Amino acid sequence: MHANVMERPGQPPRRISRPVRFGEVTIGGGAPIVVQSMCSSDTRDAPATGAQIAALAEAGCEVVRVAVPNREAAAALPEIVRGSPLPVVADIHFDHRLALLALQAGVHGLRLNPGNIRDPTKVREVVRGAAAHGVPIRIGVNAGSLPPVEVPEGRLPPTVEELRATLPERLVEAALGHVRILEGLDFHDTIISLKAFDVPLTIAANRLLAAQVPYPLHVGITEAGLPWAGTIRSAVGIGILLFEGLGDTVRVSLTGDPVEEVRVAYEILRALDLRRRGPTMISCPTCGRTEVDLVRLARQVEEHLRGIEDPITVAVMGCVVNGPGEAREADYGIAGGKGKGAVFRHGEVVATVPEEELVEALMAEIERGLAFKRLR
Amino acid sequence: MHANVMERPGQPPRRISRPVRFGEVTIGGGAPIVVQSMCSSDTRDAPATGAQIAALAEAGCEVVRVAVPNREAAAALPEIVRGSPLPVVADIHFDHRLALLALQAGVHGLRLNPGNIRDPTKVREVVRGAAAHGVPIRIGVNAGSLPPVEVPEGRLPPTVEELRATLPERLVEAALGHVRILEGLDFHDTIISLKAFDVPLTIAANRLLAAQVPYPLHVGITEAGLPWAGTIRSAVGIGILLFEGLGDTVRVSLTGDPVEEVRVAYEILRALDLRRRGPTMISCPTCGRTEVDLVRLARQVEEHLRGIEDPITVAVMGCVVNGPGEAREADYGIAGGKGKGAVFRHGEVVATVPEEELVEALMAEIERGLAFKRLR
Repeated sequence: MHANVMERPGQPPRRISRPVRFGEVTIGGGAPIVVQSMCSSDTRDAPATGAQIAALAEAGCEVVRVAVPNREAAAALPEIVRGSPLPVVADIHFDHRLALLALQAGVHGLRLNPGNIRDPTKVREVVRGAAAHGVPIRIGVNAGSLPPVEVPEGRLPPTVEELRATLPERLVEAALGHVRILEGLDFHDTIISLKAFDVPLTIAANRLLAAQVPYPLHVGITEAGLPWAGTIRSAVGIGILLFEGLGDTVRVSLTGDPVEEVRVAYEILRALDLRRRGPTMISCPTCGRTEVDLVRLARQVEEHLRGIEDPITVAVMGCVVNGPGEAREADYGIAGGKGKGAVFRHGEVVATVPEEELVEALMAEIERGLAFKRLR
Repeated sequence: MHANVMERPGQPPRRISRPVRFGEVTIGGGAPIVVQSMCSSDTRDAPATGAQIAALAEAGCEVVRVAVPNREAAAALPEIVRGSPLPVVADIHFDHRLALLALQAGVHGLRLNPGNIRDPTKVREVVRGAAAHGVPIRIGVNAGSLPPVEVPEGRLPPTVEELRATLPERLVEAALGHVRILEGLDFHDTIISLKAFDVPLTIAANRLLAAQVPYPLHVGITEAGLPWAGTIRSAVGIGILLFEGLGDTVRVSLTGDPVEEVRVAYEILRALDLRRRGPTMISCPTCGRTEVDLVRLARQVEEHLRGIEDPITVAVMGCVVNGPGEAREADYGIAGGKGKGAVFRHGEVVATVPEEELVEALMAEIERGLAFKRLR
């Protein structure tokens, strides 16, 4: 595994859900929070989809979803599944035949809402197929695709405010409708997602749902936008849910390259010390006290750290007097000054060098430290 | 005001603090959450600092802080304060004379820890000066600058784990030490910040503090890093605090241009519907179903929306069938398809146009809508 779970006193307790498995990857039951994404490639193009899955896996993605909107896409699934280093989840909207084809192709999960298939015979066929293949089903309800509220005859339709106020309950109710269909067929390998663009709504709905079912939760914010704004909205929404202990697998949705979704997901998990991939960098904002080009220095260090997979913490501080002390939680660090700089480890200065040798001296110190650790 | 407070049912209640004022800007007491930043310019260079303050104000910054590390910086303050459209807070570390010079220069706030000045006569002089000028004092304690734990003779020093477990309490205790000095001098125009790079620690400390004092809280995550990672860490940490109702003013700390700090702060506030500046954009992630270049389309719309200050919501969806319905919460939207696209308002399709005219048709619809709204 690339990533490790951090044990951390004081972290709020996680909700322990009934675990399910996409292939070798466990979701829920106290397993590390799983990072997933979705291909933006045309599923019919198996080589392009395979290349995107490889890039996602390289970035740390652990489960990948592909859209299966038609038979041509379903026909490409065997090749995609065969070549994929990750479990593949087939995303299906209404057509139960596509679900059956996906199961035959060996996918590791289905994303479908059984209520959308309608015909009970067809639903039974799909659910029995999933059970036979040991394949979990993810139910997903988004605020935008809720069914309309039924208004009894002679009654006034609800106002916009009333509709808005009942949204969390209606999201949960829609998900529970699908859950009941699965439970009625004695199927329990279920994951549920409730998503909206609206962060407080997403949180309210997930809290309600978590109290009512034992299943793992897939969390995310839908249609969050282009990478910059979408990253912030996702970090706020997913961050709050995870901090409350809710969420067994995470998908960040961005209008852009799905590889960026994976990078953002890990950074959210890192911010809460839930998982880590590679080095963590601390760097202070520049201020009127800074006598070194801190932004350039921080970027250089970031660049140099790219090859390292160990979960070390590295600080880049603007001030030799306060820097090493303020960053004493860091494993390694540098602090710039007037032409000179200090390299430190756990707050202790280990070397003072000219500013232009600072990054090099830091990297040498890190490599010494990591080599020593590997020897032990 | 550029920004407006959103009233929103279901939003968790905010902690109501004792309000203080930096110039015309109220912090706490139920006022809108104030966005602030800090100049990275050399304070001694008044024109450069003035230019940076103007750029920050343009981005929506409402209070600006400048470092005052020496007499030359203090000497530049009168010119900076005179030219600033924003209240100016002087950041002072130890030297009480710099605080007195800043007060004479007409600054609207001080950031200093009275305990760091040590000599009670000097502390009294500064605090009386602040009171006479009607200037609040922000106390700030960071995890990195905590005083060492005193070990009684004959006792073993605490282990690293013990030190870590008591960090939230020690941060609060350090802040309360400074608070007691101010209260002892009958000074109550106080704002407090407790910050760390560590998000769960920052949250734990702020929760503890909020229960013990009536003062407004300045919230942020220190040394969060370069813009990409720092933005995510800040969004998670500040987002959780604000969602819990904690925080009267926000500073995002990034190693980079402070204007970016302001943009990120507003995006965090927007994600929680606490404040809004300009349009909000919803856009779906591309998937194997998308038949339009959604990323390009979304970027074009983002570009075109830049001139608009109204807090409208605009959706850019990949699919004509589901898009308008899924984004019915949006005021305006477009959905792409095979060469053609739809313009919609509140989920109703109002026009179908060739794909290359989609953005233009959307902007025309928005301008019509806004013009109509202004007429009323």
